[in-house]
Amino acid sequence: MESASQALTNLIVEFQNLPGIGHKTAERLAYFVLRSPSAEVLKLAAAIHQVKENIRNCKDCFNITERDLCPICEDSSRDRSLLCVVEQPKDVYAVEQSGSYKGLYHVLQGSFAPLEGVSPQDLTVRSLLARAKGGEVREVILATNPDFEGEGTALYLHEQLKGLSNTVQITRIARGMPSGSQLEHVSRNIVSDAFEGRRAMEGSSKTVD
Amino acid sequence: MESASQALTNLIVEFQNLPGIGHKTAERLAYFVLRSPSAEVLKLAAAIHQVKENIRNCKDCFNITERDLCPICEDSSRDRSLLCVVEQPKDVYAVEQSGSYKGLYHVLQGSFAPLEGVSPQDLTVRSLLARAKGGEVREVILATNPDFEGEGTALYLHEQLKGLSNTVQITRIARGMPSGSQLEHVSRNIVSDAFEGRRAMEGSSKTVD
Repeated sequence: MESASQALTNLIVEFQNLPGIGHKTAERLAYFVLRSPSAEVLKLAAAIHQVKENIRNCKDCFNITERDLCPICEDSSRDRSLLCVVEQPKDVYAVEQSGSYKGLYHVLQGSFAPLEGVSPQDLTVRSLLARAKGGEVREVILATNPDFEGEGTALYLHEQLKGLSNTVQITRIARGMPSGSQLEHVSRNIVSDAFEGRRAMEGSSKTVD
Repeated sequence: MESASQALTNLIVEFQNLPGIGHKTAERLAYFVLRSPSAEVLKLAAAIHQVKENIRNCKDCFNITERDLCPICEDSSRDRSLLCVVEQPKDVYAVEQSGSYKGLYHVLQGSFAPLEGVSPQDLTVRSLLARAKGGEVREVILATNPDFEGEGTALYLHEQLKGLSNTVQITRIARGMPSGSQLEHVSRNIVSDAFEGRRAMEGSSKTVD
């Protein structure tokens, strides 16, 4: 006997299909659902339905939204001359949480991963190029992740974007020491980045070249 | 802005209500649901519904079932003279997986926890006593967990059961060294249990008292 209930066995399997959930955790979650009041756990089922039914991509920036445009593209107070290119909707969320950016976004929906068969055609690059040469954009900030795929994606986008216009500046987010870290504890690549990217301090008379 | 979508925020909150799921994991699961094909993740929502709608308690043993009786109580090949008392349906599953028991079960639906307000009346004790004195049962095996609540529950049940009949034997599952463990790595309580519970080896001429 696998379990006294096919329904419970099915639920364990479905929990196990989630990323990072092993068999023991899936069992624990399924028995929690079994023991909990229906009203509480059915809210989880309803929330899954709502995410799949109500969420689509913003027609301008491809961020997630429940309308045609996302709240950021709709917000008239945002600086429309700045375009920040990120890989995923959750990157938009991370940048917004930092409170350090007030422009618009462009969500690529991934990064190039030739080995996994993800090419520029699979991403929203064509639409990015159209937005960048629309005339309103003054700076495109490439904020793909500082990992192998993200750096490759930034290099590719830089090639595509630099030929478009002389008036659009293309920048890349800084690499360096993570705030709160110690030199003795970070990897040598991070220390290298921090030295290569060093900047003149305010009030100093010369810039570092 | 908390997120570009209220639906996504809700889903993160619902995942976070599951035991052992923190905010970061809940975010990761919610974005996984967002990215996955609807057909796949809606199966999870459906499985939750089915568990809450189809599963009830066996009217004899209080194990989980999708019918009136659980598959074990319905199985005519099980030994009806043996009754194994466990705390939760998942304990039935654990004992069944061991393959070492062919009798019936009785699920208490918990253990006594006076500090959390769980008393004998909240458990299925009355029904256990009725089954034990029904005449068919020869041995009641108390298989509550060997922890504080489980031991207290076993002591209480022993008091209740021993007055019922002279013909029903009451036993407790063994405590000792976990199979595969080493003396040097287990706690002193486990070693104590193992020595107190020692048994004569087969073929030896005397029993240890």
